[in-house]
Amino acid sequence: MLSFQHLLESFEREFCREIQSIQSTAPVQLYEPIAYSLKVGGKRIRPVLMLHAASLFTPNIGDVYPAATTIELFHNFTLLHDDIMDHAGIRRGVPAVHVRYGENSAILSGDAMSIMAFQFLTKCDPEKLSTLLSLFSKTALEICEGQQHDMEFEKRDQVTIPEYLEMIRLKTAVLIACSLKMGAFIAGADDQSCSLLYDFGIQAGIAFQLQDDWLDVYGDENSFGKKIGGDICENKKTFILLSTLEKSSDQDRISLKNWMGKTDFDPKDKIESVRDIITRSGAAEETKKLMKHYHDLALGTLNKLQIEDSEKEELRNFAGQVLSRVK
Amino acid sequence: MLSFQHLLESFEREFCREIQSIQSTAPVQLYEPIAYSLKVGGKRIRPVLMLHAASLFTPNIGDVYPAATTIELFHNFTLLHDDIMDHAGIRRGVPAVHVRYGENSAILSGDAMSIMAFQFLTKCDPEKLSTLLSLFSKTALEICEGQQHDMEFEKRDQVTIPEYLEMIRLKTAVLIACSLKMGAFIAGADDQSCSLLYDFGIQAGIAFQLQDDWLDVYGDENSFGKKIGGDICENKKTFILLSTLEKSSDQDRISLKNWMGKTDFDPKDKIESVRDIITRSGAAEETKKLMKHYHDLALGTLNKLQIEDSEKEELRNFAGQVLSRVK
Repeated sequence: MLSFQHLLESFEREFCREIQSIQSTAPVQLYEPIAYSLKVGGKRIRPVLMLHAASLFTPNIGDVYPAATTIELFHNFTLLHDDIMDHAGIRRGVPAVHVRYGENSAILSGDAMSIMAFQFLTKCDPEKLSTLLSLFSKTALEICEGQQHDMEFEKRDQVTIPEYLEMIRLKTAVLIACSLKMGAFIAGADDQSCSLLYDFGIQAGIAFQLQDDWLDVYGDENSFGKKIGGDICENKKTFILLSTLEKSSDQDRISLKNWMGKTDFDPKDKIESVRDIITRSGAAEETKKLMKHYHDLALGTLNKLQIEDSEKEELRNFAGQVLSRVK
Repeated sequence: MLSFQHLLESFEREFCREIQSIQSTAPVQLYEPIAYSLKVGGKRIRPVLMLHAASLFTPNIGDVYPAATTIELFHNFTLLHDDIMDHAGIRRGVPAVHVRYGENSAILSGDAMSIMAFQFLTKCDPEKLSTLLSLFSKTALEICEGQQHDMEFEKRDQVTIPEYLEMIRLKTAVLIACSLKMGAFIAGADDQSCSLLYDFGIQAGIAFQLQDDWLDVYGDENSFGKKIGGDICENKKTFILLSTLEKSSDQDRISLKNWMGKTDFDPKDKIESVRDIITRSGAAEETKKLMKHYHDLALGTLNKLQIEDSEKEELRNFAGQVLSRVK
């Protein structure tokens, strides 16, 4: 088993080389925006999870780097195109690609990034390629479906909680699950282990998204690393908001819908007022309860995995972060 | 060898089934725009070429349909995203996807289409998958590069003829070449035959694009199937225009640049005046000469192919269309 920290450093080294090579490829107008979006960083969670999953089954994880690159490229491609669709101007503290290079460049460089993600799979063992391409392309399509639901929910008056959970499964969890499963599969793990790691990824991924929703309301801007209250300002129908709509008093519900209907408001005012309504409704507790539920499911799945218990430590810690950051 | 007509009908039957199934997949907001863009038609040249190339080497071309679907999906994906980037409102006589469904849908459904193209490759023989994915992803990336050059040329004052030819090689010819090569490869053709068919595709593809440029100036709207003079109105730096800029008299060149600088003009006036300048310069003849050159190269390549001469008839006719439509 290799630690996340060790894997992060080693992936980052490899990936930096890839970025350098992308940056110097012609035509520069196509490839520079790709390098720009990749250089800005990100936590590289998905490739690290893939490499770690592989390390549970083999000491030799050299074969996993191309697929890890596939996942990181694809994840960043989705962010790039999502930012166009969401009219998001800032990504990781710097101008989004469509702001910096224009919308056409963002569309086309994103397209190229998605293709490059598939291209990296050609560096995998040809005998494993069919399975890898099936899993990855299915996952990639599911992520598009998740984004479609997300965009569509914004226009709707009502979204049910099961609909929301399915959306975040597609938009967020499946790529985490796919990363773990691909890592294990490349390392030669048996089908059952691959499936369990996939399920663990889904459960932990949903817990993480619920945490993200919670942090948008209650997080500390410095440690969260992004602006607080963004979801509130955009009336994002997150679990915490849907639950507030369900649980709050009639008066608070009217007040919340009133805030949601305003087009002209002081963000600080709206964030504070909506946060108070959320708190009074008990939706914050409800969200923590659901996070805990998915966290426990994830640990239960991990328990079934047929490897030494001590080998499960990193994944247990990974899932555990969900609880530690939410007070 | 199977005739284009026969293959077109049989591909169309299979493809219709795929479109039906895409159309009824949830979420409908993601998949309906895809079905819409595919149903509008198109000549299905690339899948037909692929199936035909396969039929030169095997009587059993059933294995080739998934890859033919890959190519047709990917081609239509590029049109869909190109229409957003070019602000083109009409495609094949009906509103473009971004006009009909909105820009966000067009971006996301296009992304899904590109992914589905890769997904269809998983239905190919796993033993051949690595080679197919390498060729296809390289080609897909080259098409993005071609589109990038095309967009960039619009902003430039000067484009050289070699730069233009490289752009159309990437944007148009490589997908035709890739289709032929994939068909032959799946059918078990030897490396040399695959390479020759690829080269034939590049040469014929360039000839076809030059023909398209010529038809935009001199074509008959009814038989060409699209509006004449579109390139002229948009100042597209096609070979025929670049050659006109090179060969026309000083007076005509000034007049042409004057037309190109106008933002407010009657399209009919501009098309007629520019056409006259093109005709006087001799660029039309120059374009036909270059088309003929690539046509002859294509036939020369076809000659080297180690199959019965009678089997080459359809591809010879295909390349020959370049000359027959240009009078």
